Amino acid sequence: MSTKIGIYGYGNLGKGVECALKNAPDLELVGVFTRRDPSTVKTYGAPVYAADELMNFKKKIHVLILCGGSATDLPKMTPELAKHFNVIDSFDTHAKIPEHFKAVHTAAVESGHIALISAGWDPGMFSLNRLFASAILPEGQDYTFWGRGVSQGHSDAIRRIEGVVDARQYTVPVEEALERVRKGENPQLTTREKHLRECYVVAEEGADLKRIEHEIKTMPNYFADYDTTVTFITKEEMQKNHGALPHGGSVLRTGTTGVNGEHKHVIEYKLSLDSNPEFTASVIVAYARALYKMRRRCETGCKTVFDVPPADLSPLSPEELRAKML
Amino acid sequence: MSTKIGIYGYGNLGKGVECALKNAPDLELVGVFTRRDPSTVKTYGAPVYAADELMNFKKKIHVLILCGGSATDLPKMTPELAKHFNVIDSFDTHAKIPEHFKAVHTAAVESGHIALISAGWDPGMFSLNRLFASAILPEGQDYTFWGRGVSQGHSDAIRRIEGVVDARQYTVPVEEALERVRKGENPQLTTREKHLRECYVVAEEGADLKRIEHEIKTMPNYFADYDTTVTFITKEEMQKNHGALPHGGSVLRTGTTGVNGEHKHVIEYKLSLDSNPEFTASVIVAYARALYKMRRRCETGCKTVFDVPPADLSPLSPEELRAKML
Repeated sequence: MSTKIGIYGYGNLGKGVECALKNAPDLELVGVFTRRDPSTVKTYGAPVYAADELMNFKKKIHVLILCGGSATDLPKMTPELAKHFNVIDSFDTHAKIPEHFKAVHTAAVESGHIALISAGWDPGMFSLNRLFASAILPEGQDYTFWGRGVSQGHSDAIRRIEGVVDARQYTVPVEEALERVRKGENPQLTTREKHLRECYVVAEEGADLKRIEHEIKTMPNYFADYDTTVTFITKEEMQKNHGALPHGGSVLRTGTTGVNGEHKHVIEYKLSLDSNPEFTASVIVAYARALYKMRRRCETGCKTVFDVPPADLSPLSPEELRAKML
Repeated sequence: MSTKIGIYGYGNLGKGVECALKNAPDLELVGVFTRRDPSTVKTYGAPVYAADELMNFKKKIHVLILCGGSATDLPKMTPELAKHFNVIDSFDTHAKIPEHFKAVHTAAVESGHIALISAGWDPGMFSLNRLFASAILPEGQDYTFWGRGVSQGHSDAIRRIEGVVDARQYTVPVEEALERVRKGENPQLTTREKHLRECYVVAEEGADLKRIEHEIKTMPNYFADYDTTVTFITKEEMQKNHGALPHGGSVLRTGTTGVNGEHKHVIEYKLSLDSNPEFTASVIVAYARALYKMRRRCETGCKTVFDVPPADLSPLSPEELRAKML
C-alpha cells in the first residue's frame, strides 16, 4: 500500500515536491492545500483544495509536507498541524531550531503523531555530513562553503532599498580558500575570505545608482563583511540571465589520525544544484517516506535528519539495499 | 559510564582502532586480543591478551571490534563471536555481504547480541552516500571512483608472480572521466576509462622484467581490463617512497528534477585519506559507539550502516547536535 502525501502551501517548494513525488511510485499525492483561492492555483496535475478543507483529510493523509516559509509560516504552522497530522517541514533558521523542535515535539507527542523538521540540504544533508565527519574525525576542523547560488534572503534585502525594482544576489565561494581547505592546510578564514557576494540590480529610471550601490555594500549582516560587487542590468537581462535558482556548496572536514596525529584526511560533500527548491523538495520527499516507516514502528514526537536510519529513505527493501548498495 | 571496547586482531586496522579510541573519551579500551604470542605484540599502550582468554571478558566488554581479514578470518570469526559479544567488523567482500549478514544475524539474534558488519568507507561511508543520493535523486546515475590509493589486493596479486620481491599498486581515477561526471555529462564509462593502475615492483636480481611486466598487464580481473603501467624500482626506493597507505575516492550521483527533468544536480562525496586503515578504523569506532547505544535500546541482530540513526555516532547529546550541527 502506498503512503499518502499532502502538500500544504504551493510556492516553488510545493511545486518541487509535486514533481519529486512523480519519481516515487510508493508515495501517492492526495492533493495540494492552499490558503489562496484554489481556482487560482495551477498544479502539474494534483487536485487543489482550500486550506480550510484540510481537517477533512485527517484519515486520508499519512504525511503532510509543509511548504511554508521559515520566517513567519512554519513556527506556527508546524506545531499546529502536528496536532492533527504526521508533518515534515524545511525550517531553516538555524539559530531557532531548538525552540522550533520543542514546540513541534510537544504537539506531536501529545497527539500521537510523528514530525520531522529542517529537512533539505542546509539544514539537512549538509548537517548530516557535518555530523558524520565530526564523529569519524574528532580531531579536526569543519568548513562550509555555499554557492555559487542565489540567496533569496540577500536578494530580498536589496529589493527593499529605495529605487530598486528587482535584484538577484549570488553567494560565491572563494575558490582559493576552498582549495586551501581541500589541500588540508586547515586555514583560519574570515567571513570575507570565504565568500564573495555578486549582486545584479534593476534600478528605477533616474535612480541614484551610486547611492544604491553604497547602501548595498555597507548593509550590516548582509553585505558589510563581504567583498561585494554590484552590477546594474536591465529588466530584460534579469529575466533572460537570472531566472534560475541554482545553489549548492561544500561541507568539508579536515582531520588527523595516528598515534601522533601524523595522518591527514579530507572529507568533502559537495552539491551542485540547478534548482535549489527542487533539490530541497527531493530531500523532503525521501524523508517523508522515512517518516511514515518510523511512524509504523510506533514512533512519535519530533525528529530531525539525525534520527532517521538511512535505509528508511529508500523505496528498496533492506535486503535489496545490502545486496546492491553496501 | 563509558562503553568498554575490545580489539580482536592487531594488524594495521587494529592499530588504527587503538589510535582512534584515544580521541573518544566516552569509549574505554579494555584490551587487545591476539592469536599470536601476546609477548610479541607491541601496542601503543593497551594491554594484550591471548585470544584464548577472550571468553573471560564476556561481562567486561560491551563491543568487540573484529580486525581480521575479509577473505578467511571474518566469515567465520564474526558469526562465531556474535554468539558471545556485541561485535562489529569491516567485512568488505561486496558480493558476499548478504551471505555474511545472514550468518551473523542468526548468531546475534539467537544469543541476544547486536552486530554490525561492513563498517568502513567502502563498504561504509561510500555505501551510505550511494543510498542517500539515490533516495534523493531517483532519476539519475551513480559513479564511484577510487584512488589515488594503494590496493592491497592488487599489490598482493603482483607479489605472487615469480621473480617479484615486493610490489605496490596504486589505483588512479582518470581525471578526465571524473570531470565529465562532475559536469553532469552522464557519460557511459568502461572500466578502462575510469581507472588506471600504476604498479611499482621490486624484482629479484636477474629476473626477466619483460615477462613480469607482461604477466602483470595481462592478469585477468586484476589488470587486463585496465591501462596499467609497471615501473621497476629498488628495495630502497620502495621503502622510501611507497611505505604509506593512502586511499580515497569519490561517490557521485548526477540526477534530474523538474516537471520534465529539466534541472540537473550533482552530488559528490569525496575522501582523500593519508591512511586507509586508520580512517577505516575511525569509522568503525564511531559505529561501535552507535552500536552500543542501539543495544541499550534493546535492539539485537545484525545491522549495517544503513540501519544506524546518525545521531548515535556522535558523543554529543541530541540537544547539542540540533543546536550545533543542524
